[in-house]
Amino acid sequence: MRSRGTCIRQGDVFYMNFSSYQELINKGLKTYLPAGEAYAHRVRQAMEYSLLGGGKRIRPLLCLLACEAVGGNKREALPAACALEYIHTYSLIHDDLPEMDNDDFRRGRWSCHKKFDEPTALLAGDALLTEAFTLLSAKQVMKKVPSPIRLAVIQEIASAAGIRGMIVGQEADLAAEKKKVSSDFLRFIHTRKTAAVIRASLVSGGLIGGAGAAELKGLRQFGEKIGLAFQIKDDVLNVEGNPRLMGKKTGTDQKKAKATYPLLMGLEPSKLLGRELISGAEKALKIFGQKAEPLKQVGDYIFSRDR
Amino acid sequence: MRSRGTCIRQGDVFYMNFSSYQELINKGLKTYLPAGEAYAHRVRQAMEYSLLGGGKRIRPLLCLLACEAVGGNKREALPAACALEYIHTYSLIHDDLPEMDNDDFRRGRWSCHKKFDEPTALLAGDALLTEAFTLLSAKQVMKKVPSPIRLAVIQEIASAAGIRGMIVGQEADLAAEKKKVSSDFLRFIHTRKTAAVIRASLVSGGLIGGAGAAELKGLRQFGEKIGLAFQIKDDVLNVEGNPRLMGKKTGTDQKKAKATYPLLMGLEPSKLLGRELISGAEKALKIFGQKAEPLKQVGDYIFSRDR
Repeated sequence: MRSRGTCIRQGDVFYMNFSSYQELINKGLKTYLPAGEAYAHRVRQAMEYSLLGGGKRIRPLLCLLACEAVGGNKREALPAACALEYIHTYSLIHDDLPEMDNDDFRRGRWSCHKKFDEPTALLAGDALLTEAFTLLSAKQVMKKVPSPIRLAVIQEIASAAGIRGMIVGQEADLAAEKKKVSSDFLRFIHTRKTAAVIRASLVSGGLIGGAGAAELKGLRQFGEKIGLAFQIKDDVLNVEGNPRLMGKKTGTDQKKAKATYPLLMGLEPSKLLGRELISGAEKALKIFGQKAEPLKQVGDYIFSRDR
Repeated sequence: MRSRGTCIRQGDVFYMNFSSYQELINKGLKTYLPAGEAYAHRVRQAMEYSLLGGGKRIRPLLCLLACEAVGGNKREALPAACALEYIHTYSLIHDDLPEMDNDDFRRGRWSCHKKFDEPTALLAGDALLTEAFTLLSAKQVMKKVPSPIRLAVIQEIASAAGIRGMIVGQEADLAAEKKKVSSDFLRFIHTRKTAAVIRASLVSGGLIGGAGAAELKGLRQFGEKIGLAFQIKDDVLNVEGNPRLMGKKTGTDQKKAKATYPLLMGLEPSKLLGRELISGAEKALKIFGQKAEPLKQVGDYIFSRDR
């Protein structure tokens, strides 16, 4: 990874390396968002506010890179990449609502229901989730991708986001508050809540790029491990991160007595586990040889990031 | 329509005529709902509670009948029919939440957030919406339907449920409370909030049954008109319906100063408009000849129902 000295933060290097991807993703997010309707504009505004208000764009980036790793053209995967960011953003909007995590800030700005209001935030989340599937099935996009592959992409993403993936993870996360949980239960939460959609980002990019079974297996394993590491890093940052850099408060997990790795096993062992997962994840990319370098860079960033 | 005398209510006749369809739909809803996961079961229970707690099943029925009207096998359309009911149920769960319509009862039972709790209801709605697309893209269903048609079905349903359909309709409905609205605005609300998904139910059934362009056009027109009539009838029932039969309170629209047809144009003119829409809708089915009879029966029921 390029680095011009210690005054440059890990995150800056990461964004420099992938700035052309970030530009492509941000342009896609703007382009694909449907125009508003007459009479009612507030939900449409709230979708845009939350979607275009920053964010690391890790999931869409992984989708584009997985497509390239198997020899595909990243532009073909852009609609799927954007749909994944829609789904991620919907999950943040709903998680921030008062009946869930009740967070007033997100990415250094008001969370959606604070900026707008609760009904608008609820509907904006619903709309982003729905638009993900409108986009994935749109006739005018991904024209070169065979229809059965497109259906497989929808299946991969919907399953990961649903009751056996992200949603049951969020449910279990809420249920685990103020409880002593086993490491098996905590792993269950993190793999569903976070790793499922990260894995789906890689698999869907691979599918669009024309991956074979062995390549898909490698992407799946890589995704599971970096996804778990991603959530462990989130937990670690909630303990020792810099609130200014992160754009949100830290220490909130402890306050709510959330089930986290630092609470279960301590801060340093959590970091060790995270690093082990990243290194295990990189091994799963062996089949791609040199082509896996960008994915490995993202893997490294996931556990070294400071926000 | 068969009738054995005035002691039998319109609804009873309707359900007798379509009981085999209702059985098929209810069986499908149970079969396709994904099994639960370890550790967290509450959201899964809430999905089932709301999904299997009665309901007229109008949208799935229209989907199956449209499939048959174009010569298709209704069993091929069953997954799409069930996905439509998932989406309808999600919309009811979210609409009942305190930040939206704040309704404690639904179909004569506690609404989802009263039976469970608000976070569970929020997640159950999210999960039902997501599972609709998991089901529509599942490899093991609709095997005889070509993949491009399946994508078109997903597109039709997602568009109707999204920010240019049901969601903007719900937004506009909330925004119109306590305001004097034009008939154009009210028509905008009702066609988005209710008619969009009803139209998509017919079009998706038609697509799965192998409809041609002219048949799809007929189904689309029929759906738009009966969809609007359906919402007008809901408004009328909210004024003069029997709360015991309906399983929920009446008079709530007036209390909240909702924008409705009875408020805009009076009760009798609203009924007249509804009947005109149904009769116009039936004309759109001319192309189907005798095969359109069951659809016409549903059209009649939509405006004659008492719940």
